[in-house]
Amino acid sequence: MTTSTAPSGSSNPASAAPVLDLNADLGEGFGPWRLGDDEALLATVTSANIACGFHAGDPATMRRVCRQAVTAGVAIGAHVGYRDLVGFGRRHLAVEPDDLAADVLYQLGALDAFTRAAGDRVRHVKPHGALYHAVTTDPVQAGAVVEAVRRFDPSLILVGAPGSVLLGLAEDAELPTAAEAFADRAMEPDGTLRSRLLPDAVLHDPETVARRCVEFARTGAFTAVDGTAVPVPARTLCLHGDTPGAADLARRVRAALAEAGVALRPLGHAAVSD
Amino acid sequence: MTTSTAPSGSSNPASAAPVLDLNADLGEGFGPWRLGDDEALLATVTSANIACGFHAGDPATMRRVCRQAVTAGVAIGAHVGYRDLVGFGRRHLAVEPDDLAADVLYQLGALDAFTRAAGDRVRHVKPHGALYHAVTTDPVQAGAVVEAVRRFDPSLILVGAPGSVLLGLAEDAELPTAAEAFADRAMEPDGTLRSRLLPDAVLHDPETVARRCVEFARTGAFTAVDGTAVPVPARTLCLHGDTPGAADLARRVRAALAEAGVALRPLGHAAVSD
Amino acid sequence: MTTSTAPSGSSNPASAAPVLDLNADLGEGFGPWRLGDDEALLATVTSANIACGFHAGDPATMRRVCRQAVTAGVAIGAHVGYRDLVGFGRRHLAVEPDDLAADVLYQLGALDAFTRAAGDRVRHVKPHGALYHAVTTDPVQAGAVVEAVRRFDPSLILVGAPGSVLLGLAEDAELPTAAEAFADRAMEPDGTLRSRLLPDAVLHDPETVARRCVEFARTGAFTAVDGTAVPVPARTLCLHGDTPGAADLARRVRAALAEAGVALRPLGHAAVSD
Amino acid sequence: MTTSTAPSGSSNPASAAPVLDLNADLGEGFGPWRLGDDEALLATVTSANIACGFHAGDPATMRRVCRQAVTAGVAIGAHVGYRDLVGFGRRHLAVEPDDLAADVLYQLGALDAFTRAAGDRVRHVKPHGALYHAVTTDPVQAGAVVEAVRRFDPSLILVGAPGSVLLGLAEDAELPTAAEAFADRAMEPDGTLRSRLLPDAVLHDPETVARRCVEFARTGAFTAVDGTAVPVPARTLCLHGDTPGAADLARRVRAALAEAGVALRPLGHAAVSD
Repeated sequence: MTTSTAPSGSSNPASAAPVLDLNADLGEGFGPWRLGDDEALLATVTSANIACGFHAGDPATMRRVCRQAVTAGVAIGAHVGYRDLVGFGRRHLAVEPDDLAADVLYQLGALDAFTRAAGDRVRHVKPHGALYHAVTTDPVQAGAVVEAVRRFDPSLILVGAPGSVLLGLAEDAELPTAAEAFADRAMEPDGTLRSRLLPDAVLHDPETVARRCVEFARTGAFTAVDGTAVPVPARTLCLHGDTPGAADLARRVRAALAEAGVALRPLGHAAVSD
Repeated sequence: MTTSTAPSGSSNPASAAPVLDLNADLGEGFGPWRLGDDEALLATVTSANIACGFHAGDPATMRRVCRQAVTAGVAIGAHVGYRDLVGFGRRHLAVEPDDLAADVLYQLGALDAFTRAAGDRVRHVKPHGALYHAVTTDPVQAGAVVEAVRRFDPSLILVGAPGSVLLGLAEDAELPTAAEAFADRAMEPDGTLRSRLLPDAVLHDPETVARRCVEFARTGAFTAVDGTAVPVPARTLCLHGDTPGAADLARRVRAALAEAGVALRPLGHAAVSD
Repeated sequence: MTTSTAPSGSSNPASAAPVLDLNADLGEGFGPWRLGDDEALLATVTSANIACGFHAGDPATMRRVCRQAVTAGVAIGAHVGYRDLVGFGRRHLAVEPDDLAADVLYQLGALDAFTRAAGDRVRHVKPHGALYHAVTTDPVQAGAVVEAVRRFDPSLILVGAPGSVLLGLAEDAELPTAAEAFADRAMEPDGTLRSRLLPDAVLHDPETVARRCVEFARTGAFTAVDGTAVPVPARTLCLHGDTPGAADLARRVRAALAEAGVALRPLGHAAVSD
Repeated sequence: MTTSTAPSGSSNPASAAPVLDLNADLGEGFGPWRLGDDEALLATVTSANIACGFHAGDPATMRRVCRQAVTAGVAIGAHVGYRDLVGFGRRHLAVEPDDLAADVLYQLGALDAFTRAAGDRVRHVKPHGALYHAVTTDPVQAGAVVEAVRRFDPSLILVGAPGSVLLGLAEDAELPTAAEAFADRAMEPDGTLRSRLLPDAVLHDPETVARRCVEFARTGAFTAVDGTAVPVPARTLCLHGDTPGAADLARRVRAALAEAGVALRPLGHAAVSD
């Protein structure tokens, strides 16, 4: 499927302007609790991964964030996770594939109700937390996610790690895909993210992160820790929303990309414009 | 809206054959637990009210029952309830209307995902348990349910008690409605159900219940405890599924109606045929 | 039982120094989410009402806050609520009394495990949110709470609103009780709290609140909105922890009471010293 | 610790009568749902492993079963599990050890409240489902369980698989332990249970199972599939309660052991009698 393997606009030298999507996790509160600054992120990103009630996201929060996203022109995606509220979906759960597919269908449908009530529809799906990591390498759980998405709406774009089993299986199933990159993570020369056990794994300086985003938008590559340029086949950059200074960093990234003439468009819209 | 106020086929003397819908609550298990005999009821009823995860119904159960219902040709409705698993949605919860509307939208969307994956779509909505009772008289919670249904899909048929605030507000909002009657409950001369505090409130004899169903299908009325005939503007009869002998009673009702020449059709289909 | 009806030291003119307890709600996070500034409040109050997992408070949070409370010398009480995480226990739930008593026993036992592991034991019980309001007037739910506490440990002090049905039934059952007052709420001449619908219902100025606390410690009365002094038979003052400026206000109250020579002691300890 | 390594009466040739404990999982319902026949099992076993709310067991169910167990003279143990209601605790969850210890403390305290209210106290702890399997080999999760039990009450007896990491760490921590055997499972010559993938893994014939129980009580060994006698250092036999015929099988085992002169006593009492 061309959508999934096509380079982003940024890696197309004939393109007049590079095109990129910025995504962030939103709606990560539950009941009385909030996490992250949804409003600030909605003013910055082009795609929102909205929690669907299993690791975070009660119905009232989902409804509010969907409305805000539609108003802000931000594309809505389902941030599907393990059913583990207290663990925020960050702990691996050995779900059987049939149950996992049902869990994903449930979350997709629930989010779609709010998205349609707000006047749009779900555009992409991104696994959250421990499920994100599991489907990077586990073909059984990855297959369950792909099956659920295919049955729900085969036009949904699956977002995941470059080279992940999830994206491979999604392409096999002829679902559109989009690999994502993390602008605030240091990269090893082999393209893997630098281990969080090392002190320089996460980049906190907004200028540094913004510069890397512009570099990626223009060249399709990130500079690794040894100075080499590593091509990354990503069409969307993930901005974290739950760290101190996250909103400021996101704003700086957006401004830098705008200054550099990079067009920011949601994945679905970008595909249309290709 | 004519659909909601139209008499059932049974009250139309010109109709060659009375038409009726039989509904029952299904998918009331959760995880390892089962409640009721879904398979037996699916062989009997024409409409299934499927639990959506708030008072019962985990995703795997919902998926299985939706598939079975579609295979059996049974129309699927959302049995929406309060978020109270341990209380099975039978305890009144003072939910604010905005939160209740969000809860209903969430449940509708989740069930719709399974229904669509099984090749059909949700046809009706029936509140469960304490919510069913609340929306019979409380305009605030009833209004929230109506608002959620209207935003999700204004072609969904709202099922509730005859004369309930819910059905009144639904008609005001131009949503199709269907009042339901309970064939296994004794009736007072004023049309109310005989109090469960009285020993003869619930009818257990399958022949008695079956005879009352046929009587209602032919005349549009039930015989009250004093022998008078009470017209009831219902288009669907609710069969209980979680009591001993429920499956046998349901089978006997279905057989008796068939013998009497009553056509059994789901609400949506019946409306089409009117 | 004298403990429950005895005036606090503050209303005993023969007492060399007035004695008061300051309580606040703590441990109101869940999983990844936090609410309120537990650390700041632990440095200020003498009694902590710790959420027990039903409206807030996961096990890891409960364990941490219990350890911190024991280290800080703050007495631990069970903040028991309805099983309603998403509603934070603020919505009335029509629980049957047997089920409510079981819910309260469950929460008491769970908190006691952490308190004992930290080297102390639970000292008091205070209903939370909608349950707090319900047991002020509803003898059925209030009776269930009293029954649970009596069966768990009849030396626990029940904390509630002055004149509440809860405290009345607790006294009937010979359980120790302590009425609480709210220093940051305006009071009507009849002793009721000024409705939150009125703009001046909540006092935000730390100096005003601190002055009222000192006044109450010295005289056993609060000045009502019309200037009259209203005696309040309270032995503990509740400080809110989840509002902006809550920690600062709490610190100011504590400092003012110290300056005024008021001894701050947990309810249990105060009873010993009476 | 002698309790944990002491042979059961059955393996002591000088003992006048072999002594054995029979345990079963109870209280595995939740809200409206039941699983297993608690009443029948309480008439048969000497120790009950009661679900504590995380994989099953709502407070009202826990309270009822604790009362019934105390009335029946059955010793109460905590059946602690992962927080996974929909998965019934049968799916591995990668809980961090601090969180797992808190989860276990929470469940222990909750069950203890009901047990004390019923006039007894918790006697043993047995992990459930996927946690049971995890602590057989995983020293991190096993260590967390041991730490929680040690902090809650170091006189509690830890029940687990013979040779498990859990029992090893418990003995290192000087906690009493009891290995358990499964009378209805075929055994390999090396003492492991025959894989459930094989058709003859589970023994269904009550006479066969009863004969194996008597054999074990007398000799301390089970006959493996190749006919060899395999000594098993177990002090308690686990009877399953959630399979068809479970209650009948349990009754047959009990009767056979009584006929053979085997004394049935709870673990704690047995220890006292050694």
